[in-house]
Amino acid sequence: MSTLSKRFPTVVIANLKPQVEGGKYPVKRVVGERLEISADVFKDGHDVKTVLLMGKKVGEARWQLRKMSELDNDRWSTSVGLREEGTYLFRVRAFSDPFESWLHDFERRLTGDQEDFSTEIQEGIIILQHAAELAEKRKNNKDAQALQDLAKVLKKSKADKVPAVFEKTAVRNLMSRYPDMSESTDSEEFVEVTVEHEQAQFSAWYEFFPRSAKGSATEHSTLRDCIPRIEDAVKMGFDVVYFPPIHPIGVSHRKGKNNTTTCEPDDVGSPWAIGSEHGGHKAVEPALGTVEDFAWLVKEARERGVEIAMDFAINCSPDHPYVKEHPDWFYQRPDGTIKYAENPPKKYQDIYPLNFHCEDWKNLWEELLSVVQFWVDQGVTIFRVDNPHTKPVAFWQWLIGEIHKNHPRTIFLAEAFTRPKMMQTLGKAGFAQSYTYFTWRETKWELMEYVYELTKGEMRDYYRANFWPNTPDILPHHLQNAKPAAFKMRATLAATLMPSWGMYSGYEFCEGEPLPGREEYLDSEKYQLKERDWDKPGNIKAFISKLNQIRKDHACFKSYTNIEFIPSDNDQLLAYYRWSEDPDSLILCVVNLDPEKTHSSNIHLDLEAMGLEAGKEFEVKDLMYEDSYQWRDSTNFVSLDPTTKPVHLFEVIKSS
Amino acid sequence: MSTLSKRFPTVVIANLKPQVEGGKYPVKRVVGERLEISADVFKDGHDVKTVLLMGKKVGEARWQLRKMSELDNDRWSTSVGLREEGTYLFRVRAFSDPFESWLHDFERRLTGDQEDFSTEIQEGIIILQHAAELAEKRKNNKDAQALQDLAKVLKKSKADKVPAVFEKTAVRNLMSRYPDMSESTDSEEFVEVTVEHEQAQFSAWYEFFPRSAKGSATEHSTLRDCIPRIEDAVKMGFDVVYFPPIHPIGVSHRKGKNNTTTCEPDDVGSPWAIGSEHGGHKAVEPALGTVEDFAWLVKEARERGVEIAMDFAINCSPDHPYVKEHPDWFYQRPDGTIKYAENPPKKYQDIYPLNFHCEDWKNLWEELLSVVQFWVDQGVTIFRVDNPHTKPVAFWQWLIGEIHKNHPRTIFLAEAFTRPKMMQTLGKAGFAQSYTYFTWRETKWELMEYVYELTKGEMRDYYRANFWPNTPDILPHHLQNAKPAAFKMRATLAATLMPSWGMYSGYEFCEGEPLPGREEYLDSEKYQLKERDWDKPGNIKAFISKLNQIRKDHACFKSYTNIEFIPSDNDQLLAYYRWSEDPDSLILCVVNLDPEKTHSSNIHLDLEAMGLEAGKEFEVKDLMYEDSYQWRDSTNFVSLDPTTKPVHLFEVIKSS
Repeated sequence: MSTLSKRFPTVVIANLKPQVEGGKYPVKRVVGERLEISADVFKDGHDVKTVLLMGKKVGEARWQLRKMSELDNDRWSTSVGLREEGTYLFRVRAFSDPFESWLHDFERRLTGDQEDFSTEIQEGIIILQHAAELAEKRKNNKDAQALQDLAKVLKKSKADKVPAVFEKTAVRNLMSRYPDMSESTDSEEFVEVTVEHEQAQFSAWYEFFPRSAKGSATEHSTLRDCIPRIEDAVKMGFDVVYFPPIHPIGVSHRKGKNNTTTCEPDDVGSPWAIGSEHGGHKAVEPALGTVEDFAWLVKEARERGVEIAMDFAINCSPDHPYVKEHPDWFYQRPDGTIKYAENPPKKYQDIYPLNFHCEDWKNLWEELLSVVQFWVDQGVTIFRVDNPHTKPVAFWQWLIGEIHKNHPRTIFLAEAFTRPKMMQTLGKAGFAQSYTYFTWRETKWELMEYVYELTKGEMRDYYRANFWPNTPDILPHHLQNAKPAAFKMRATLAATLMPSWGMYSGYEFCEGEPLPGREEYLDSEKYQLKERDWDKPGNIKAFISKLNQIRKDHACFKSYTNIEFIPSDNDQLLAYYRWSEDPDSLILCVVNLDPEKTHSSNIHLDLEAMGLEAGKEFEVKDLMYEDSYQWRDSTNFVSLDPTTKPVHLFEVIKSS
Repeated sequence: MSTLSKRFPTVVIANLKPQVEGGKYPVKRVVGERLEISADVFKDGHDVKTVLLMGKKVGEARWQLRKMSELDNDRWSTSVGLREEGTYLFRVRAFSDPFESWLHDFERRLTGDQEDFSTEIQEGIIILQHAAELAEKRKNNKDAQALQDLAKVLKKSKADKVPAVFEKTAVRNLMSRYPDMSESTDSEEFVEVTVEHEQAQFSAWYEFFPRSAKGSATEHSTLRDCIPRIEDAVKMGFDVVYFPPIHPIGVSHRKGKNNTTTCEPDDVGSPWAIGSEHGGHKAVEPALGTVEDFAWLVKEARERGVEIAMDFAINCSPDHPYVKEHPDWFYQRPDGTIKYAENPPKKYQDIYPLNFHCEDWKNLWEELLSVVQFWVDQGVTIFRVDNPHTKPVAFWQWLIGEIHKNHPRTIFLAEAFTRPKMMQTLGKAGFAQSYTYFTWRETKWELMEYVYELTKGEMRDYYRANFWPNTPDILPHHLQNAKPAAFKMRATLAATLMPSWGMYSGYEFCEGEPLPGREEYLDSEKYQLKERDWDKPGNIKAFISKLNQIRKDHACFKSYTNIEFIPSDNDQLLAYYRWSEDPDSLILCVVNLDPEKTHSSNIHLDLEAMGLEAGKEFEVKDLMYEDSYQWRDSTNFVSLDPTTKPVHLFEVIKSS
């Protein structure tokens, strides 16, 4: 018995890119970007090949076809504009093109000593007639007639006149509309691309605690008190305002100020210890207001140009309704009591972790999905997910997939500060953005290496970094009791090294008092109301505003990958440029990494790569400080005094 | 309706290596090698994981399990010894280990202020009893009793004594025999490995034309005349003797001497124009003898320690029986006549190419398989395949797979001098060995780069290079009218840079007269009988013998990847070392790439990487010239005079 299948691939199509884990996860892009798709395509013999990219939105029936072109060495590619959110599939189709092969051979034959071309002319006629039949089948009588006419022309042609007629673009285009694809090969593999809203890639986040919106240490603020803070965020140029959890806070084992285990009667507790007699994840802490207040605030914020991002923290306090209603969703001791969270010998008695592997896991997972759906229904489009790495990756892949079915615009930010592979895999599983190690990357080499890893390697296709200089959990030592220059410098790095960045409130006031010996804030507002003058003198709000404005005004900040570093002769000066082509923009950033001292250096531009002409003047205009210089060479001198000018944000203006 | 599946993976297992194109093609190894298999394995939470490698030979029912260990950063690995030819499958299984997790947490709890351990002890008892039940189920009553006893011990233990009892290796081993794998995750992906005969990787080939075996330009030699040549090859240390096609040669349009289109009556024709009235691919050219003569010769050769490799060239002369019996297997003109081979404007009228895509392709493919099977039945174990890149890759994958079903030892060498991706893909499709660009790689940097590409990158897993300094088709310009030093130098490179190498006869006599302006031999024996004195004075047979002997005596030449280059301060001196661990061997090669001049230089050894101790003397003993030096530092001086000593092949002997 023959072991031969009915069909075998006539063309080898391999190494289809981009792919994440060989197609197991989709590649990520945002609306407005172009996607470059390439593949190795080759076959035995010398036929001229046609290589097509087939593409469609998932759910559509018909593939759209477009031609790919050969780059080099059997590598074919094309690029596709991405105009609408959704998931798209692409694959490659290749086949021998009898017409082009015939034409190519015909021309080469003419260079030899062949005299009789009747066979070749007859072969050409057959090819033309075959195309005419295809045109007839597709009811395009005009094309069919044109092809039949061409066959007649060929029949009467002298051999040496053939190329002149058939090399014409019009003839080739006509023929290419009726390719014989009966022997074509389609790639086994697909490129799957999730195209997301632009904000999934380009966003500026501002985090504050609604309960401290008014800046009082004694009076609990409400959601309705948040409008001035939101307007401040808008003024500073942010487009996402992120709230820590707003749900009812548990009372059992509630943590006191500075994370102490003893709690005073007036302590407000950690918003991450969710659930009380007032409800769980679908409720709002009564001291903040109601679900309706929140929905109102989301709408008010949106009218002002910002989205409110909600915290999705799958933590239950001992008072969470789930504890009574579904004790089987939690881990239990042999005696039947519920286990609190532990990392021995540390105990977290105010939190009960859920058991994602429990018998009733399906109902648990569905319930958690319904929580997200509940808030989506209140208008939320962005979720910051707390500690996703302590829940199964499969859970996130399922949950995000389910939400995206009806709400493809929903953005999930993964707050996973853990080992690299788990962080990467959460990105693959569907998180649109992820926190990063940026917070602890300080030196020039660390920053360069990390940005290259994120933007130039495989991670670019599935992991979108969101750079935060601080969070309520992390006051890195370089910001502890630091000068404003340090805050300006780190904000500039975050905002210009990545299309997405964020800061936790207090940053604009250069707050930096740590718990001694820790990278945590003293008197952290995670555990208490925070007194704050939101217009405190000496703040850097104007600097932040300008930074975000420059990001908005220049398209180069929207691209994830268009960043290159520039050599400087001083390890404390980090220089890099970003660019975009359509619209054209080119920004050169120079950052003094040392908030204590002035640093100077030559920096060495790659003029050609930057689209500049050696010896021809160009202007570099500092958008932050409104200075301007005329440069003309690749080597240029810069000097940054942290007290007056810790950074340059140069717009590079080519002379016309 | 729930979109949740019945099971979801509890552990992430990804990036399984090695794989070729994500598992589309098998990885290649040979008997005697070890295979390192690794994967990323991680999950949410802090449980201690057990990670197992599951492995079996294809066709076997049961998986063998072995433990993997963590390298670093969630990467787990183990290595497997490969002892028998065949195809093997591996996958990874991972699960939380409740016993080890319990023990780990117990120890950490003891470092805190916990006083009551009754819950933890009760949990431990449950784990032990569960293991005891598993042991009972598997009818191991002794283990079941031991586990029940341990549970009793635990019940009576004081908390601080628990680790001392349960950390014992014997207890852990006992527990690891009864793991709870009910929540385990198996990798979706597999590692597939084809384990081939050692000769698929380590071989020395010698090619000659049987018809010129006696060295006469006028008298056609026969297969029975080949014994002296085979014995010569054995003396020179080769283990494969490769014959160009031995089939009947066509007479229509037979090529004359030096590939002319006019043919004299006594011209013998090209052996690659196969088929005459005497038969086709299953017949032997009458002037050479019979199929029986060939089978006899294969046996005689094997008794002397060499395999005869047959040429599988899918070319048909116009006189091939297929032309009459199956005209539909060929390409036809519109008038029904059969097309000869062309590469316009060049014509090859002595050859009709087969159409692998013809209507009757299944019968054509089956017929070609039957050709290979016919010669396998005559005792052939090695085929050199002519121009495989002009036939569909799918054909080769099918044909080699079919032959390997019953003859896994059969080796196919791909003679594809074409673009890189096609060459690579033929390797993936099943060719055990492949010709390479070595023949044209001359400079130090070209050689280093090419050897690194072949041995250190992905190609290592599917492409086995066979280095040939010459072939009947290629007399590279550096060997044209060159001195013996050039031949010695290129032979040394081929034989020591790769585990497989080969040469075409005449090389040992430093034959180097080209067709003017071409990289072809003048009076090539592809088209005529060749007069040759097989003991011609000035030959380098002794050098070749020694080279092959050194290869055989030192295990380091069998490994494909164990080669590293060594910096030398002279671009004409190429230095490298090969090593093996079991058995231990270390050879340092230094080659003068310039056959015209003496070159000297310091070379800089990486003593640590080579397993040597700085400051401690070691001997380098030239196996080729029987010199010896005592070295002790990383930097050492070498000087090579091409007329007397174009190479060093140093055995490095560590002082004990």
